[in-house]
Amino acid sequence: MSSNLARTRLRLLPERGSYDSATINAIIDAALICHVAFVEAGQPFVIPMIHARMEDRLVLHGSPASRLLKHIASGKPLCISMTHVDGIVLARSVAHHSMNYRSVVLFSTGRAVTSKAEKMKALEAIVEHITPGRWQEAREPTEKELQATAVVEVTIEEASAKVRTGPPTDEEEDYSLPVWAGVLPLLSAYGEPVPDPRLSPDVPLPDYLLKDSLDSVAKNKRKP
Amino acid sequence: MSSNLARTRLRLLPERGSYDSATINAIIDAALICHVAFVEAGQPFVIPMIHARMEDRLVLHGSPASRLLKHIASGKPLCISMTHVDGIVLARSVAHHSMNYRSVVLFSTGRAVTSKAEKMKALEAIVEHITPGRWQEAREPTEKELQATAVVEVTIEEASAKVRTGPPTDEEEDYSLPVWAGVLPLLSAYGEPVPDPRLSPDVPLPDYLLKDSLDSVAKNKRKP
Repeated sequence: MSSNLARTRLRLLPERGSYDSATINAIIDAALICHVAFVEAGQPFVIPMIHARMEDRLVLHGSPASRLLKHIASGKPLCISMTHVDGIVLARSVAHHSMNYRSVVLFSTGRAVTSKAEKMKALEAIVEHITPGRWQEAREPTEKELQATAVVEVTIEEASAKVRTGPPTDEEEDYSLPVWAGVLPLLSAYGEPVPDPRLSPDVPLPDYLLKDSLDSVAKNKRKP
Repeated sequence: MSSNLARTRLRLLPERGSYDSATINAIIDAALICHVAFVEAGQPFVIPMIHARMEDRLVLHGSPASRLLKHIASGKPLCISMTHVDGIVLARSVAHHSMNYRSVVLFSTGRAVTSKAEKMKALEAIVEHITPGRWQEAREPTEKELQATAVVEVTIEEASAKVRTGPPTDEEEDYSLPVWAGVLPLLSAYGEPVPDPRLSPDVPLPDYLLKDSLDSVAKNKRKP
């Protein structure tokens, strides 16, 4: 095992772990934000950021004055995590309470993205990651706006996923306790779009903002 | 400004920042998980964890074999973030797209919690943070289970919150563009509890698991 791989090797509960890139990419792509950790003068920092995946890379953006963006651009080591909480796992005993979740932890180093063409592609990926269909409609960045936006990309050098699903596991002798046990699912969905107070009533809501209703999300969650 | 405070001073978009402890605590308490960053041999790590706040401290738990728990117990510097995404902010121009969110970044150092009484209090705080009412019902940890659980507490030494709410801000000349603009709210709610397949039908669902329906969450979100 290389020292590199030691960073992501799951020593505890390895049955929850995965190094499969399809699993990892699905968790990355389903996340609206990630948490980016870096070290400055021995001090850890962690900052929430918006990401988009482009094959084996993530693109991130921010202000050119951002300490984090400069840090990433300088190629220093990063650790990034995406986490989805899917439900609260209620066991009969306190000790077996848990959560159903999907998480990724990945390691990488970054570089600045500076060419206009690459920056535009990265920003398109970010906008389309959050709201597919939006890039074609919104006004494109001007030259000045592009200059006021720093873009970095980080290559996913090493990543692992952890996933827990399903009911609680209790000690055999606890199954007869009169304590409700099961999973309380956590649902996430888009609500009804709220128009900008200055939106002209002539502008229709585009199809790409018509999301699954809360009811359909709730129903899907009840499927086995 | 002390070098300590420099860690959380918000240099960019300071109007989104807050150092008010009521704001910070509300964001911490509303989060089911946090992301904990630490440094080992110059390498940053970030791991999702379950927390509970006890006044100006957070308690965390895990396996006694966990590298992270040992690291925290040793008193090395940590950075912890909690983030809620409340909506996608759709502006008329790509450059003004944003998110509505609430996030906290805090700095701390930890210590191991080793006495039985303190460990029980911390575990109670964690269980009650995630599912208020649960501690009284589930079977308490045995001596052996307590020994198999490591608990650490970290004092919040310094923290800042960032909050964005409300509609997009566009360039004045873009308001007349025929592009839909506004906010797509992101809702989060508990679904219908899913009983453990081995749950006896005699055991009723406790009141504390009857959560707000999705509809009521959606309605609250539509309030101004």
